[in-house]
Amino acid sequence: MTFDPSTLTFDAAGLIPAIAQDDETGEVLMMAWMNAEAVEKTLATGRVTYWSRSRQSFWVKGETSGNIQELTELRLDCDRDCLLVKVRQTGPACHTGRRTCFYTAIKDGAEHEVVTL
Amino acid sequence: MTFDPSTLTFDAAGLIPAIAQDDETGEVLMMAWMNAEAVEKTLATGRVTYWSRSRQSFWVKGETSGNIQELTELRLDCDRDCLLVKVRQTGPACHTGRRTCFYTAIKDGAEHEVVTL
Repeated sequence: MTFDPSTLTFDAAGLIPAIAQDDETGEVLMMAWMNAEAVEKTLATGRVTYWSRSRQSFWVKGETSGNIQELTELRLDCDRDCLLVKVRQTGPACHTGRRTCFYTAIKDGAEHEVVTL
Repeated sequence: MTFDPSTLTFDAAGLIPAIAQDDETGEVLMMAWMNAEAVEKTLATGRVTYWSRSRQSFWVKGETSGNIQELTELRLDCDRDCLLVKVRQTGPACHTGRRTCFYTAIKDGAEHEVVTL
């Protein structure tokens, strides 16, 4: 079946969550949002492209920092309302300089930083 | 720092996306939503508990199907607006009977089922 991004289920703002996962290590790196055109751009260019809700513009990951995400596989879920993008990540995914945005774990009711810079 | 679920960043509906990942294999299993109380329940019980947007009620994953998710670690991201729940998954995570909800991959512009029943 030919894939048409417009057949995905978007929220009221026209966005769908996209989970980025390191294709080699399996580490979940970040979650951001795409609109239909960002999905198209990601597939067409092989460079993961999100929609920045704060800037209201396309966000080619790593365009300014160099920390690009090369798409290795795009998956959608059973409800067609969430994407999983498997990537080859150059440098850190997180703007803090950490490999992953998920560097804080809850242990015994407290926050602990478990991924260092 | 003591963790207080109310300090997370929730959307207009009071929800935060939660990505469930198999703690052993690293496989991303599903994405669903939690409110602050669901986060509390998940931490208190060790059973991953979402908020069902369709039913508008708590959804203790596996409560009826038996396909429970035991929490092994809860993480939050740098923006505090997304959760990663590492789990020990009993049975399939997807309601279709597949291990993961992300069983459809886009290859050469078409949809392919890459995880079978």
